[in-house]
Amino acid sequence: MMEPYQLYYWPTIQGRGEFVRLALEEAGVPYVDVARGKGGMKAMHAVIAGGSEGFAAFAPPVLRAGGLLVGQTANILMFLGARHKLAPRAEAGRLWCNQLQLTIADMVGEAHDTHHPISVNQYYEEQAREARARARDFAVERIPRFLDYFESVLQANPGRGGWMVGSRLSYVDLSLFQLLDGLRYAFPKVMAAYQGRWPGLARLAGRVAARPRIAAYLASPRRLANNEDDLFRHYPELERGVRVRPRA
Amino acid sequence: MMEPYQLYYWPTIQGRGEFVRLALEEAGVPYVDVARGKGGMKAMHAVIAGGSEGFAAFAPPVLRAGGLLVGQTANILMFLGARHKLAPRAEAGRLWCNQLQLTIADMVGEAHDTHHPISVNQYYEEQAREARARARDFAVERIPRFLDYFESVLQANPGRGGWMVGSRLSYVDLSLFQLLDGLRYAFPKVMAAYQGRWPGLARLAGRVAARPRIAAYLASPRRLANNEDDLFRHYPELERGVRVRPRA
Repeated sequence: MMEPYQLYYWPTIQGRGEFVRLALEEAGVPYVDVARGKGGMKAMHAVIAGGSEGFAAFAPPVLRAGGLLVGQTANILMFLGARHKLAPRAEAGRLWCNQLQLTIADMVGEAHDTHHPISVNQYYEEQAREARARARDFAVERIPRFLDYFESVLQANPGRGGWMVGSRLSYVDLSLFQLLDGLRYAFPKVMAAYQGRWPGLARLAGRVAARPRIAAYLASPRRLANNEDDLFRHYPELERGVRVRPRA
Repeated sequence: MMEPYQLYYWPTIQGRGEFVRLALEEAGVPYVDVARGKGGMKAMHAVIAGGSEGFAAFAPPVLRAGGLLVGQTANILMFLGARHKLAPRAEAGRLWCNQLQLTIADMVGEAHDTHHPISVNQYYEEQAREARARARDFAVERIPRFLDYFESVLQANPGRGGWMVGSRLSYVDLSLFQLLDGLRYAFPKVMAAYQGRWPGLARLAGRVAARPRIAAYLASPRRLANNEDDLFRHYPELERGVRVRPRA
């Protein structure tokens, strides 16, 4: 019997850990969300920078898989993708999944920086003015740049099935669901203004949410509600007065 | 005879492409820096977002390897590391290299954001005030947080030889050389104030620079000078009044 994975991530937010949780849930493999349990925060601090474990990661999420500690979200997904048929087997497909996941991670980082453009060591309220400028640029320039790209990749995929890579679901599809869900939470008016621009991505997100294991997870207490301590945050002032541009 | 690799990156800066160039140079493999040649910018635009090639990347750098197009710096390095003995062969070592490279990439992104904290669609001069606040936080909080971590990884490496991973040079060592070189260029006073704090990293950087192929490359015209269009930029005002803290 396979020893359960141990996932270490901040216990009260979806955050970057959620990308890993979705893969674990879709794969249907047993795992422990360590920081949510008794003594869990202490256990998490042991596996990140300053902690006592060998091969501690710089930051969460970290996955313990038997004797291995694996950090960095895209790296964990690459590891799980290979083990649980959530990525193509051939090298070219694995590289392409990794490349797309890293581009998703870049967008996720920029989404975070809309509310923390100056320092992660200060609260949002201390950089709210700079956040408005950053969020405006994100909404008008960066969201369409990234999502036009992902839509074009999806449309160009020669595989059948409407997935991003090949003809089967991969962790990239799960991650795009999470990315779009977060963007709609954080920027509801902006995303509504872009309605219809990314039809393939919209369909893909719906199909991921309808996967039996994903649907069960989303309805479970393991799926936390969005909140304003999280990676994706809804600050209405960041959308005020933002006008998106029609497609060139 | 192996067909030369084709590297696509902005032709007038070191940037993220430099991390790939160092690996290609250390491996001693033939490659063409496409954008620096005739018709090169047009060729580069075909392999990035909006371009005509299948599997175009979101952004440079991109490596063409026979029939494959590989994007995202850490993904390219993982690919080259496996092919040219610049990474361990076993899975655990490859995952650890990838994890460390992604952490390096995170720091590189933050270094870039010290001069562009609000928007990549505006010049530095239009966000210089925000850049001062961001750079101060980077210098006082983020540089030590990242470099203390890399130093601890180096010190904890059970392998011989003073490399980051195992007992042999990997692409992670090359990348740390480049990261430190860039930080010393961009923040000379700050890095001088931290003198002696990361002795392992300092020794490692010197050993990388002394590798015969790397030394030859650094002395060649292929190695561009640092400049203020680059990823690492020296704006003296970003260091003015910045006082680093001694180690806790």
